[in-house]
Amino acid sequence: MTDTDPETLADRVREGDLRLYELEEHADADVAAAARRLLVESESDADLATTSEYAFPAADAEANIENMIGAVQVPIGVAGPVEIDGGAISGERYLPMATTEGALLASVNRGCAALDAAGGAGARVLKNRMTRAPAFRVADVAEAEALASWVRDNVDSLREAAESTTSHGELHEVTPYVVGNNVYLRFAYDTKDAMGMNMATIATEAACEVVEDETSAHLVALSGNLCSDKKPAAINAVEGRGRTVAADVTVPRETVKRTLKTTPEAVAEVNTRKNLVGSAKAGGLGFNAHVANSVAAMFLATGQDAAQVVEGANAITTAEVVARGGGGDSTGERDGDLYVSVTLASLEVGTVGGGTKLPTQSEALDVLGVRGGGDPAGSNADALAEAVAVAALAGELSLLSALASRNLSSAHADLGR
Amino acid sequence: MTDTDPETLADRVREGDLRLYELEEHADADVAAAARRLLVESESDADLATTSEYAFPAADAEANIENMIGAVQVPIGVAGPVEIDGGAISGERYLPMATTEGALLASVNRGCAALDAAGGAGARVLKNRMTRAPAFRVADVAEAEALASWVRDNVDSLREAAESTTSHGELHEVTPYVVGNNVYLRFAYDTKDAMGMNMATIATEAACEVVEDETSAHLVALSGNLCSDKKPAAINAVEGRGRTVAADVTVPRETVKRTLKTTPEAVAEVNTRKNLVGSAKAGGLGFNAHVANSVAAMFLATGQDAAQVVEGANAITTAEVVARGGGGDSTGERDGDLYVSVTLASLEVGTVGGGTKLPTQSEALDVLGVRGGGDPAGSNADALAEAVAVAALAGELSLLSALASRNLSSAHADLGR
Amino acid sequence: MTDTDPETLADRVREGDLRLYELEEHADADVAAAARRLLVESESDADLATTSEYAFPAADAEANIENMIGAVQVPIGVAGPVEIDGGAISGERYLPMATTEGALLASVNRGCAALDAAGGAGARVLKNRMTRAPAFRVADVAEAEALASWVRDNVDSLREAAESTTSHGELHEVTPYVVGNNVYLRFAYDTKDAMGMNMATIATEAACEVVEDETSAHLVALSGNLCSDKKPAAINAVEGRGRTVAADVTVPRETVKRTLKTTPEAVAEVNTRKNLVGSAKAGGLGFNAHVANSVAAMFLATGQDAAQVVEGANAITTAEVVARGGGGDSTGERDGDLYVSVTLASLEVGTVGGGTKLPTQSEALDVLGVRGGGDPAGSNADALAEAVAVAALAGELSLLSALASRNLSSAHADLGR
Amino acid sequence: MTDTDPETLADRVREGDLRLYELEEHADADVAAAARRLLVESESDADLATTSEYAFPAADAEANIENMIGAVQVPIGVAGPVEIDGGAISGERYLPMATTEGALLASVNRGCAALDAAGGAGARVLKNRMTRAPAFRVADVAEAEALASWVRDNVDSLREAAESTTSHGELHEVTPYVVGNNVYLRFAYDTKDAMGMNMATIATEAACEVVEDETSAHLVALSGNLCSDKKPAAINAVEGRGRTVAADVTVPRETVKRTLKTTPEAVAEVNTRKNLVGSAKAGGLGFNAHVANSVAAMFLATGQDAAQVVEGANAITTAEVVARGGGGDSTGERDGDLYVSVTLASLEVGTVGGGTKLPTQSEALDVLGVRGGGDPAGSNADALAEAVAVAALAGELSLLSALASRNLSSAHADLGR
Repeated sequence: MTDTDPETLADRVREGDLRLYELEEHADADVAAAARRLLVESESDADLATTSEYAFPAADAEANIENMIGAVQVPIGVAGPVEIDGGAISGERYLPMATTEGALLASVNRGCAALDAAGGAGARVLKNRMTRAPAFRVADVAEAEALASWVRDNVDSLREAAESTTSHGELHEVTPYVVGNNVYLRFAYDTKDAMGMNMATIATEAACEVVEDETSAHLVALSGNLCSDKKPAAINAVEGRGRTVAADVTVPRETVKRTLKTTPEAVAEVNTRKNLVGSAKAGGLGFNAHVANSVAAMFLATGQDAAQVVEGANAITTAEVVARGGGGDSTGERDGDLYVSVTLASLEVGTVGGGTKLPTQSEALDVLGVRGGGDPAGSNADALAEAVAVAALAGELSLLSALASRNLSSAHADLGR
Repeated sequence: MTDTDPETLADRVREGDLRLYELEEHADADVAAAARRLLVESESDADLATTSEYAFPAADAEANIENMIGAVQVPIGVAGPVEIDGGAISGERYLPMATTEGALLASVNRGCAALDAAGGAGARVLKNRMTRAPAFRVADVAEAEALASWVRDNVDSLREAAESTTSHGELHEVTPYVVGNNVYLRFAYDTKDAMGMNMATIATEAACEVVEDETSAHLVALSGNLCSDKKPAAINAVEGRGRTVAADVTVPRETVKRTLKTTPEAVAEVNTRKNLVGSAKAGGLGFNAHVANSVAAMFLATGQDAAQVVEGANAITTAEVVARGGGGDSTGERDGDLYVSVTLASLEVGTVGGGTKLPTQSEALDVLGVRGGGDPAGSNADALAEAVAVAALAGELSLLSALASRNLSSAHADLGR
Repeated sequence: MTDTDPETLADRVREGDLRLYELEEHADADVAAAARRLLVESESDADLATTSEYAFPAADAEANIENMIGAVQVPIGVAGPVEIDGGAISGERYLPMATTEGALLASVNRGCAALDAAGGAGARVLKNRMTRAPAFRVADVAEAEALASWVRDNVDSLREAAESTTSHGELHEVTPYVVGNNVYLRFAYDTKDAMGMNMATIATEAACEVVEDETSAHLVALSGNLCSDKKPAAINAVEGRGRTVAADVTVPRETVKRTLKTTPEAVAEVNTRKNLVGSAKAGGLGFNAHVANSVAAMFLATGQDAAQVVEGANAITTAEVVARGGGGDSTGERDGDLYVSVTLASLEVGTVGGGTKLPTQSEALDVLGVRGGGDPAGSNADALAEAVAVAALAGELSLLSALASRNLSSAHADLGR
Repeated sequence: MTDTDPETLADRVREGDLRLYELEEHADADVAAAARRLLVESESDADLATTSEYAFPAADAEANIENMIGAVQVPIGVAGPVEIDGGAISGERYLPMATTEGALLASVNRGCAALDAAGGAGARVLKNRMTRAPAFRVADVAEAEALASWVRDNVDSLREAAESTTSHGELHEVTPYVVGNNVYLRFAYDTKDAMGMNMATIATEAACEVVEDETSAHLVALSGNLCSDKKPAAINAVEGRGRTVAADVTVPRETVKRTLKTTPEAVAEVNTRKNLVGSAKAGGLGFNAHVANSVAAMFLATGQDAAQVVEGANAITTAEVVARGGGGDSTGERDGDLYVSVTLASLEVGTVGGGTKLPTQSEALDVLGVRGGGDPAGSNADALAEAVAVAALAGELSLLSALASRNLSSAHADLGR
């Protein structure tokens, strides 16, 4: 045994000679992980055999995790293929989804079948802004008003400072929000194919230095929660964060009956009473059935930040029977068909950086054809956002239909959850 | 080649002879997954080699996914060990966390060091209710009022029906909510060590039959969004769903300075201006810094439902300088120390069912010592909830301190995100 | 001039001999008000002639205001009569409404005409609970959990203490909410015909003494905002405060066309796109068109607390075309008619106490036939709540129809706003 | 008796010869009101004697109400005087407040005394935008995206159309919000001294015609609830509506003790546990103690729209002990003093139009010195907004202090509510 075999290293940690996070300084990443497993196994009843069976050099994950002991394996499947008519993605695609929740893939897959029978789903990115909002303290409301004015007058110099830190990111707006002697500046960037939180943070820090240099404001926190990252917040649901993206479909009446085993009227009724009125009474920001399921599964598959499923749930689903008369204005061809849409206000996605470089995750991005930087820059992340929106649409269509047919519970039971 | 080798199966799907989800009917689960990979690879530019390297029989994941093509590998590490003084978990524990976001483990680990230096973290499950809320349609508000009254008078018969479907679950309350001719009945269960959504759904369906048999109400949807599952909803933030759980610590002033490189006053100020006032202005339900990060990483590691990170973000963090004089009432020993708490209103966790049975996920549960059913029933899920709360507390303590020291951005930069 | 004429008194205040609020100690209430007018007039350019022309002895308002200088006169009108089929009020009623906003009365009146043409409006009080929620500080989350348990076990002794302070009020529930070392106890009362805030406050204070005597908890504030009074708060929108009350109507298709100049489909569409989807996107708790208008006007007319219009706006309006087929289940007689409902979650009303005793306000209560205590106790306040709900329903029906006919703006223009 | 005396007119209504709202066509406004009183009195047990004693010609209220029967008299008093250092109002002012709730004036008055002892209150209008947001229906999300782009490119022509309808109003922004096939355009105006809802509605209608003429969008409702008027909505709390205005004060430690009978620490603690943490747990948009009380009383006194008290409650109160060390950066002179602020996100006020022209209401505006149009235009409404903010600040300071001294309930009891 050398002094860099796992046992020796584990012993050194036990003896207080090394700290758990220092192991990579003394051995390669795989040995370090092995040493940690030994330590954890000896201090618990765990056997970490499967955790150790990861299929990539641990060193490849150095930017993704610290104190690594291995990899969790989450089953991945595909739904579809589904025809997408998006602004950034077009054609038939398989949707890669990773989940541990039985029935989800089947549900989305059924939705995809209905979408395809309807000629595919439309999708559009509506907005694209990654935000970071530092909190400043000033003396009082008079100074707060002055700072807000100063910011409105000095966006150019803030932009110059912010953009000096990044080759891709562009600062689009800086919006001041005042609460007493607190001033929050919401910086909004186009971060192209990167999800962009880190880029936005670094750029904003540079701009904050300008603010502190040229005004009397004191930076309290680089993030003041007006961003708002990984928290349920109306500001994201209203103004968007990351991509605001929507997908929709008009399903012919016959397809609703044949493929979804229900009627347009029943689906519209479930959507109104559950997703609109029910969510209204629940006091929330999520007017949908289970958009988070599709978002989470696509995020896990493609290496997105799992904690940002939170904002991904800020979604509104609508369903209506297309009508010629009454309030409708259609030509009449689609009379009685079912229109369903889902709009995700704040979907934070990227195809470069973060978990997207990991081996299985980048394979999933390849399945969608959106790995790495797009051409033009930003187009791959747009495409990914549209694909997630379509997955969400498929999931909504399927679950709403299942509810309309009263079979949610039995579907789950059959699938053995 | 037999007719059940992957290539043949893939061809049959291509030819329309089989559907993608029917492959398991014609081959074992691993072969079916291989066939799907072939199909997906041929219709995209993807090479799914690493995705194929999962370390368990695909058949073991049949309850977890459909249309499986392999497994996504997410790096897992450990934070801690950290001393926990909980209601259901005690002693030193490593916290298993899976993530693709660099700096997260390091941050939680730093928080754990501070918690340990402070003598460990307290934790308590405060409430335990899994909910399902079907939506009924009645004729009008007079009938809605009558139904609500009927429900209040007939909880026993609803309980009997609901509990007839489950050996573990207990129905505790049924709360009616009326909006016009819509009546939502929020059924609240103790589902013991199971996260319990499926159990609650099946039990509620049985109770709904009683409602439909004995009243004029018509079931519109088995879930009416007053539950509210995987959506940001105030009803969960206020009343709780799954476990309501809190963790806290009083960090000695010296530890704050030495370990966290800041002061109790600075941490308290950041918390007030960012987590309380900032979140208030953002109009949200999440008054914390990044609780969702810890929740997501623990959920991924232990096989929880990743989409329920949404509700896990309904958390409030408080931080205050312990004071003898003024509004405080302490004995004075802890004068000037830093008290920090995090309270998660709606953390949905289980140690049986769902993804908890998968190989790597169950190993992570073993690391915490909470795999499978607890004794008494429910105690393992309680323990898991408390461990997640402690991870969240560690993350909050670390990030708030980092912000107070103005180093969020540089910490990220150093760690290569 | 005596030393108690207005001029002399005003001089004494000017000289610092008396304080503005001490005038009633030296003169009758009308003289005191006159003295204050002199002071205010001399220190501003105001002529308070009309303000001085109030039609009641100032002494009668001593329980309603301090530092009185006169009365504001707000125009009052009536809408209706309208037929009400309520749980506590029945028959034809005029609805008294005070407002300064032109077109409001006309709008509600038009709605009443439509209600009457439809055979009248249904109305029901669904819940009745006035709440007060003190905030306690405890040592930590372990103690918070213990306090919550103690409260659940000691509701009887809390009730005894609370009810000892009131001859009418009944304590129904005490619900603990924990955030870190903060414990909020939401006391919920039936305060009969009183709006009940003061009753609830006094009763809760007595119960708080029990809590402080028997536990280690420290009372921080008698109101901890979980009540929640006069703030937009989901807890009220979800759980209710004061009366939860709903009103509804099914308007025959022909009446919609003839009286409201639109179609059921157009009204339903406006309601869905504006009140449901629009409000969802706005991130709010008010899914209605202008319920606050009717609430405010009825509150002003009948002496309610104008600041509680805030909670009165927590209302959801639904509108649907009655359907036999599809999702509907009607007998078919009402096929194609328009069903509209409005549900106010938290309407705080009383017919005794507060402003209800003032002369003009009590006259308005007489118009409705609900002045003073009801028989049984609480029935007058229930009746008032139902009347307000009907006024809100009339307002919604009228405005939704006007929007559907695209005439909001021109209606206002015609009426000279 | 002529045919235009009240009795005859009342009879004609009874006989169906006239409608209630047509009376003004046959008699002057006072006689019409008298006729209505006769009708209402005969169909209820009401005696409307005091209601009839209004002190102005009924014709003067024709723009304010229809179906008038008289006036409600609401007691009005004054708080202060208080020194204000605002952006639009300066010097000592009495604050006119109309209310029926005993103890309110006394509370605000006590707060004013503390403000004055501290040298007065600061106040600033931070933003000024009246909004109206029509809802359009388009074919699908692709068309929605196109419309949003078209709007961004055609703001100038929308402005031209909108401003053609008004001599004062200026259109500043048009922000599109998309949900499926719904597009909401939030038009934001500077309406100067008018509250501006009607101006904004008329101007927006003109702009909508341009949208309908030049795109395929169909106007569903001139107000789509993204405005959002008289509803609790995050969009207002986050982005503001009407005036966003703040007021603050630093109260010397000694003044807190002497005038407010408590300590800065106790006030700060109550604010944090009640207004911040308590409101956070309540899931709301109002992080204050009772701002709505001051808003309602000032609104009633000065002829504002009482229903807009709803948005006035979207306020955040902060309280902190000024600190040199720790997180603070003060010079040290104010060390240990109490800083309190209140920020009202969406205060809709005007000094022209609506109820401001009524006799008593315009007298109250004179008390503040802000009646009619300001010079420059908008400055009077700004001044009124700042005065309301100061009243709110005084109320917060007083109630927080009272709570800190545990005397809320007894104060009410003493004052006889």
